[in-house]
Amino acid sequence: MPTKKLYGGIEAGGTKFVCVVAGGPGHIVDEIRFMTTTPEETLGRAIQFFQPFVTSGQVSAIGVGSFGPLDLNPESSTYGFITATPKPGWSNTDVLGRLRRALKVNISLDTDVDVAGLGEYKWGASKGCDPSLYLTIGTGIGGGYIKDGKSLIGLLTLEMGHIRIPHSRELDPFFGICPFHGDCFEGLASGPAIEKRLGLTGAVVPENDPFWDIEADYIASALMNYILTLSPKKIILGGGVMQREFLFPKVRRRVRELLNGYVSSKIVLENIESYILPPGLGNQSGSLGAIALAMQIDEGNNDPRI
Amino acid sequence: MPTKKLYGGIEAGGTKFVCVVAGGPGHIVDEIRFMTTTPEETLGRAIQFFQPFVTSGQVSAIGVGSFGPLDLNPESSTYGFITATPKPGWSNTDVLGRLRRALKVNISLDTDVDVAGLGEYKWGASKGCDPSLYLTIGTGIGGGYIKDGKSLIGLLTLEMGHIRIPHSRELDPFFGICPFHGDCFEGLASGPAIEKRLGLTGAVVPENDPFWDIEADYIASALMNYILTLSPKKIILGGGVMQREFLFPKVRRRVRELLNGYVSSKIVLENIESYILPPGLGNQSGSLGAIALAMQIDEGNNDPRI
Repeated sequence: MPTKKLYGGIEAGGTKFVCVVAGGPGHIVDEIRFMTTTPEETLGRAIQFFQPFVTSGQVSAIGVGSFGPLDLNPESSTYGFITATPKPGWSNTDVLGRLRRALKVNISLDTDVDVAGLGEYKWGASKGCDPSLYLTIGTGIGGGYIKDGKSLIGLLTLEMGHIRIPHSRELDPFFGICPFHGDCFEGLASGPAIEKRLGLTGAVVPENDPFWDIEADYIASALMNYILTLSPKKIILGGGVMQREFLFPKVRRRVRELLNGYVSSKIVLENIESYILPPGLGNQSGSLGAIALAMQIDEGNNDPRI
Repeated sequence: MPTKKLYGGIEAGGTKFVCVVAGGPGHIVDEIRFMTTTPEETLGRAIQFFQPFVTSGQVSAIGVGSFGPLDLNPESSTYGFITATPKPGWSNTDVLGRLRRALKVNISLDTDVDVAGLGEYKWGASKGCDPSLYLTIGTGIGGGYIKDGKSLIGLLTLEMGHIRIPHSRELDPFFGICPFHGDCFEGLASGPAIEKRLGLTGAVVPENDPFWDIEADYIASALMNYILTLSPKKIILGGGVMQREFLFPKVRRRVRELLNGYVSSKIVLENIESYILPPGLGNQSGSLGAIALAMQIDEGNNDPRI
């Protein structure tokens, strides 16, 4: 049996980094996890991890899914940089350039949500569903849209967590915590918004708290908008907030109520249980997605993001 | 000088049909307009118009941009049909099959907004801007998104006119007129919604009526959501409501206020006057877009929609 080809993947999170060398799911050759400290130290550890695999010729392509905001415009002078981020020390960090200069292999960079969406599309719950949508609802809210096998990047990367949705001040007097938009979707429904509103982290708010119906309504309103605007064939909901599994049936029910029969698809009207799903790769969507991105570099013999 | 190649285009509206034979803008060889009556009579007139051009070999590809809802899933048994439409007599009309059987040439069908968006992308105000968004705000509200030179179709055609947006009952006690969603974007901001609310058609509501600020807020909220979700490089606003030109500066100003610096693009932050624009082809976006669709059939030697 021929040896399976290996790829490098980096899940570059604001809290921790996961670096893997793998041929795909179930074929992870090496893996390392460490806290995100300074760019110098953190990227240095990643480089150190991959160096022997690169030197021996085992790995010639690395995919990176990073926290942001990222500059992904190839014509920009700060292409491949983390730009103005609240993460201390990381503003204006040339992540892509730094890795490329040190490792001298093909490296492709995309947002954490795009890469997780790619992983789910390649091997997870949205496998082969094109177009598909991956949404994370956690510390922030962000979405990646996979179309023709690639993440969608337009004028800029997508920022769909910040859309405006109906917010009844009577039902929910909370003003929202987004520093830019107040009560946008992220400002109302992210993990920190839940914690600020209830004084408790979402992980411990009891399942029977009436707030969860309000949360499900916000998520469902946003999903309705994405469905009508992007028409995905599958929607994956990841992130810390969605760890509360009882949210899934609430959200599905509310999406169907809000659409009110308008989208004439059996998939949505009759089979919504398999339309809106948790990640199939669990907490590996990001790291395996980075492997999937590296495989695309290899297949296309260039950066799939350009 | 070689003769320019000719194509057929049909703008199939719920009120009127426009059929053209053209090589592009400024090269319209023949054109006919007639009221939309029964499917039999209306499609019959279109067939009669194109027949001599087809028989003589001058036209071998026809693009159609139609009112809907349309079934554009090639695997469906009603592919190419107008499905459940409020337009009397047109429900379950096999538009594509009828035209193909009679004319025996390559014919491609897409929605009216997708085709208008394609026309603007090929020759109009969003020329060469990929991805770009075309939105019509008139009798209904609908959008077409051009990506990689083609209109986006996912699970179904896009229905972005029906997204949920903030609606303050204090500022605007109107309940909305969408039979499915009440106060969705279309339910609040379409031409019929304006007329029902004010008892006057939008065309004659005075420019200084305070309602226009509310209308501009709805349009800007929706545009903000599309920008964050689709990240288009250009947005074209067509349709009857947008004939009131003073709406453009109001909408642009409000989009910038709502985004509040979040989208770090100079195009949006500093140059929004050339980011949100009226159609460059005026009232010909639809018919010329149908010609652009026919040209795509010809280039790809098959239906660009499949």
